[in-house]
Amino acid sequence: MHFSSDNWAGAADPIATALAEKAGGFMSAYGTGELDRAVEDKFAETFEHDVAVLPVATGTAANSLALALAMKPGGIALAHAEAHVVEDECGAPELMMGAGRIEPVEGALAKIDAGALARHLRRYDPPFLHHGRAVALTLTQATEVGTVYSTGEIAALAGQAKQLGMKVHMDGARFANALVHLDCTPAEMTWKAGVDMVSFGGTKNGCWCAEALVLFDPSLREEAEYLRKRAGQLFSKQRFVSLQFDAYLEGGLWLDLARHANAMADRLRSGIASCGRARLAWPSQANEVFAIMSKQDAERAQGEGARFYEWPAPHWLDDKPGEDEAVYRLVTSFASEADEIDRFAALLGT
Amino acid sequence: MHFSSDNWAGAADPIATALAEKAGGFMSAYGTGELDRAVEDKFAETFEHDVAVLPVATGTAANSLALALAMKPGGIALAHAEAHVVEDECGAPELMMGAGRIEPVEGALAKIDAGALARHLRRYDPPFLHHGRAVALTLTQATEVGTVYSTGEIAALAGQAKQLGMKVHMDGARFANALVHLDCTPAEMTWKAGVDMVSFGGTKNGCWCAEALVLFDPSLREEAEYLRKRAGQLFSKQRFVSLQFDAYLEGGLWLDLARHANAMADRLRSGIASCGRARLAWPSQANEVFAIMSKQDAERAQGEGARFYEWPAPHWLDDKPGEDEAVYRLVTSFASEADEIDRFAALLGT
Amino acid sequence: MHFSSDNWAGAADPIATALAEKAGGFMSAYGTGELDRAVEDKFAETFEHDVAVLPVATGTAANSLALALAMKPGGIALAHAEAHVVEDECGAPELMMGAGRIEPVEGALAKIDAGALARHLRRYDPPFLHHGRAVALTLTQATEVGTVYSTGEIAALAGQAKQLGMKVHMDGARFANALVHLDCTPAEMTWKAGVDMVSFGGTKNGCWCAEALVLFDPSLREEAEYLRKRAGQLFSKQRFVSLQFDAYLEGGLWLDLARHANAMADRLRSGIASCGRARLAWPSQANEVFAIMSKQDAERAQGEGARFYEWPAPHWLDDKPGEDEAVYRLVTSFASEADEIDRFAALLGT
Amino acid sequence: MHFSSDNWAGAADPIATALAEKAGGFMSAYGTGELDRAVEDKFAETFEHDVAVLPVATGTAANSLALALAMKPGGIALAHAEAHVVEDECGAPELMMGAGRIEPVEGALAKIDAGALARHLRRYDPPFLHHGRAVALTLTQATEVGTVYSTGEIAALAGQAKQLGMKVHMDGARFANALVHLDCTPAEMTWKAGVDMVSFGGTKNGCWCAEALVLFDPSLREEAEYLRKRAGQLFSKQRFVSLQFDAYLEGGLWLDLARHANAMADRLRSGIASCGRARLAWPSQANEVFAIMSKQDAERAQGEGARFYEWPAPHWLDDKPGEDEAVYRLVTSFASEADEIDRFAALLGT
Repeated sequence: MHFSSDNWAGAADPIATALAEKAGGFMSAYGTGELDRAVEDKFAETFEHDVAVLPVATGTAANSLALALAMKPGGIALAHAEAHVVEDECGAPELMMGAGRIEPVEGALAKIDAGALARHLRRYDPPFLHHGRAVALTLTQATEVGTVYSTGEIAALAGQAKQLGMKVHMDGARFANALVHLDCTPAEMTWKAGVDMVSFGGTKNGCWCAEALVLFDPSLREEAEYLRKRAGQLFSKQRFVSLQFDAYLEGGLWLDLARHANAMADRLRSGIASCGRARLAWPSQANEVFAIMSKQDAERAQGEGARFYEWPAPHWLDDKPGEDEAVYRLVTSFASEADEIDRFAALLGT
Repeated sequence: MHFSSDNWAGAADPIATALAEKAGGFMSAYGTGELDRAVEDKFAETFEHDVAVLPVATGTAANSLALALAMKPGGIALAHAEAHVVEDECGAPELMMGAGRIEPVEGALAKIDAGALARHLRRYDPPFLHHGRAVALTLTQATEVGTVYSTGEIAALAGQAKQLGMKVHMDGARFANALVHLDCTPAEMTWKAGVDMVSFGGTKNGCWCAEALVLFDPSLREEAEYLRKRAGQLFSKQRFVSLQFDAYLEGGLWLDLARHANAMADRLRSGIASCGRARLAWPSQANEVFAIMSKQDAERAQGEGARFYEWPAPHWLDDKPGEDEAVYRLVTSFASEADEIDRFAALLGT
Repeated sequence: MHFSSDNWAGAADPIATALAEKAGGFMSAYGTGELDRAVEDKFAETFEHDVAVLPVATGTAANSLALALAMKPGGIALAHAEAHVVEDECGAPELMMGAGRIEPVEGALAKIDAGALARHLRRYDPPFLHHGRAVALTLTQATEVGTVYSTGEIAALAGQAKQLGMKVHMDGARFANALVHLDCTPAEMTWKAGVDMVSFGGTKNGCWCAEALVLFDPSLREEAEYLRKRAGQLFSKQRFVSLQFDAYLEGGLWLDLARHANAMADRLRSGIASCGRARLAWPSQANEVFAIMSKQDAERAQGEGARFYEWPAPHWLDDKPGEDEAVYRLVTSFASEADEIDRFAALLGT
Repeated sequence: MHFSSDNWAGAADPIATALAEKAGGFMSAYGTGELDRAVEDKFAETFEHDVAVLPVATGTAANSLALALAMKPGGIALAHAEAHVVEDECGAPELMMGAGRIEPVEGALAKIDAGALARHLRRYDPPFLHHGRAVALTLTQATEVGTVYSTGEIAALAGQAKQLGMKVHMDGARFANALVHLDCTPAEMTWKAGVDMVSFGGTKNGCWCAEALVLFDPSLREEAEYLRKRAGQLFSKQRFVSLQFDAYLEGGLWLDLARHANAMADRLRSGIASCGRARLAWPSQANEVFAIMSKQDAERAQGEGARFYEWPAPHWLDDKPGEDEAVYRLVTSFASEADEIDRFAALLGT
């Protein structure tokens, strides 16, 4: 009953197999091989747009380099207060941005509230030297609490940012999970809605290590390459990441893996909603599920082998946990099995 | 005839196999799994010393974080003028150090000259606010031109640095190749000679992506972990790097791979020395070979399928290439085959 | 009727005179002269504590270097959301901190709320690698909206920070104005209440350019000096700043100047409260006064020669300005005259 | 007998007087006053070119911001190995550049050798990701050892840099001393010779604190202003720097002050050359004089009240000091008097 995080899972079989089969032989280093170019073409096809694709080691690196690409002296990136760049990257974005700032914006369900964004942006319009400059907006899709922006919501927020000449970035550590939930195309969820660059994550969805910064304006490639190299993020044997992406994007594998993870999350949400001893903290949509239950029940379940963590109750949460309760996060993945979900729901219900 | 670089080779079989076999299942993320700890133990055993081991994505990252760990405001790291941190990392060390400086020091054969180091250090002893502070010395072992410091040379240079309270770092992108050349223990080549931290590279020697910062003072672990996370260098599925190191260090595989690469380089050196139409530019010792030949011969060999690059003639080189000649670098690896060496030598000789 | 800002005023006579009288002659550069040492002694006497005093060019520099002194990789400084370091320094603190972060904390009257601070700090206790580390708390005294922390409030907030091993900094751009309002000693308002370092501002209170970072732990001097020099903030002819501080601290001049500014603010507050066509936005205490009045009245006053700016209505303000109203900031200084205050009040009232 | 440095002198009378006379009254802050604009016009007139002028606190700040303005990720600025940015700014340029690098270039008399520059630039032409990018060339005029580039030399070096699209900066801490030596116009020594930006120093030549970054491309003003503010270098009462520059540039005062300093240096050079117990180390041209004398003689002179420092013998110096000798630096200034020069020469000769 592994619900700790989707990065506890290993590699999906087709990816592990592809890696093993193509481990040998010589290939041009530093992302200049034929395979590297072929994978970039696959991304272009997937997004229906010319792209520059820069593999990096971690989602943190992809996010940080994206913001760095938008940076100017005194530059400020706006992000939700609970975004990964704010809460879980230990200052990496600020480092890569060359001492930029991330300004936290509020909103329920970890989604930036359009009115709140407007209030924040007012400060930077017109620009005033002392305040610094708004240079980027970053949206997390799916969010840290398993919710998903609609394409309309993305377009509306991006539109606000565009009016100030800001760049729009999407942290897509769980890009695939959001996409299959919305049932739209990658293009619709990104550039058609005003997104300029995506941190495209494969690691949580069945790869070992496959993260990439995807730019819809390939003229930024050179600048991005200098930023990546300077960050120690240019793999010498980049082929091993390309191999993963090659298998990941082939024949819709990535979407199948995400659909499975989301289906398991749906099953888990149903199980929690109907078990009688726990309740859903909020209506998440992707592969993260948040339950309110008694601490006693949680400990009991953990004692029976269920792996999951407590999660701080967001301040926008109306249905606060009671004295003896807490919010818990449960994450499903491509590797989750219906059986363990059912066992967990049964365990909770008793 | 692949002599472009050792990072054009793929993965050695035992490493590829280990990865494929252990691709599945759940494991604690961010380097907190049992395997991660077991690999750290293996490093401790290998180095006969308590260590903290921090896997990162690239050698550039390992070098940069090592220097960052030694950094203070106004801090200066001394390195050979031809070191990778100076010539090939695009400013990554300076970024990670928080705007530190690398001061280039000269020396023949890409090895820091003891007298030159003494002259440089004189400037920082006693410290003077305006000059900045000497905080680290970094040595590349094997060097960028295939030469190897003896343990005595390392100890002498490290000793100079220690007198000023500096930290001593070893860039070991080709650690194994140097080690088997010296035929000493990892301990003798590092902490017994005054080295405080090592960028331990496995990638060029048969791994896909296995680089780690190894600290002989584990009390620096916490600081190093913050630096690594902040650099976007903490893999979520670190297990995949641990798996590589596990196989790499097992049963002396890493030494066998390096011995092969070096033997192939010896064979190549012999072939060049005796072919009559080329000469060794200098007596390299590890798996990089530098030949002076006519540009015409080089092009001809490349036309026949030999892959290698021109290398700028170092200014310490007495035997300068003639008008129509140039220096060329040829790199062997665990994947080099005697046959292709012999074909290349034969090709040159005709 | 100059109420734009206290930095529109020039230099107080005794300071201008001291500068003119001691303009000539030779003196040791870079803060190593006898006068520089004497001034440091004067600071020690003023604060009843051993201190290291580092003059810098601006309050922004003093604040930024103070936070830099507390910085570690992944470090976070907590500040009020309306603090100068957050709103008006264009990213300087982040730059000097080497890409640190400032986390905004809320509180009415631009004073950090103790409960809010506790909620923020909970995230960093115990420390968790991904979150970064809380390293400093900075308090603005007097605040940006003219309010003043009591010594008890300072001690309580500092106490929270100290429990996590954080450093406590005071932005004292208007230190003197706060001090004379509280009618306590410099020691009571700082180190006796848990403050470790102060940005001591003289510029707004009658100097031309006299800002200094004051450290109550002089063992940090060397580190601070490297930080200052590296920031291009070490004046070669530091004597000219020392001359200003020498006159400023002599015979309580600085307190007299601040008492005058505050008295003028009191007079202005009374005038506004009783004029009938405006009201005080909130009860400020130092030399900044905030009035709500109709935009029409404001324009009329400006047309008559009154200089002052609109100020964004803080979100903690209950008494929101009406549709045709706005909040306006009026700043008094050592150079304000009772007459112009009275003229302004009269102007408003008609 | 004050020869320690030109920054030991105070302020020239006309500057001190101007400051004292205009100390009072209100003026728009942060460099937005009429006086500030008038001073910028005076600079434009002086340089016969449209300019943006940004006063800062120190020459180190001006140099660092200039290089920051030219910076890109992976960017490298080339400077003479003995330049102030390399030897005496404690890493400030690297900090402001956002972790850029300064690459030292050699040349006799502390002037960059054209051939050496060409060799260095070859590495960056064409650009190669791993090496970083050459973005700026900085020339010190007059140099750290009192020598002066001819306008032809400047044009030749700048021309090399321009071919790679680099920006050319002049560190003019002793701009006036170089200018009066060359007896040319400010325009001829700068933009007419290919210089894009100047650190224009007034402090060493009779001001208290008057340094400015002068840009010949005013379209860079906005970017430079953000960089300056972010560096804590925007004076709130900038008027006091403007006042100094206003008097400094008025009626050629700055040239008169520099002519005096240079004349005193000439007198000192003659005195040393003819005293019989010392010799000129090299033929300096501006207001710094370098003598080789016995350590015994130096100590004796210091014992008699002469203030000057030892200077490390440059490695390009052919006439090395003997065993008991050393190189000493003697700096004259606007405040030097013929009498003390003569006393010093007499003292040496006996």
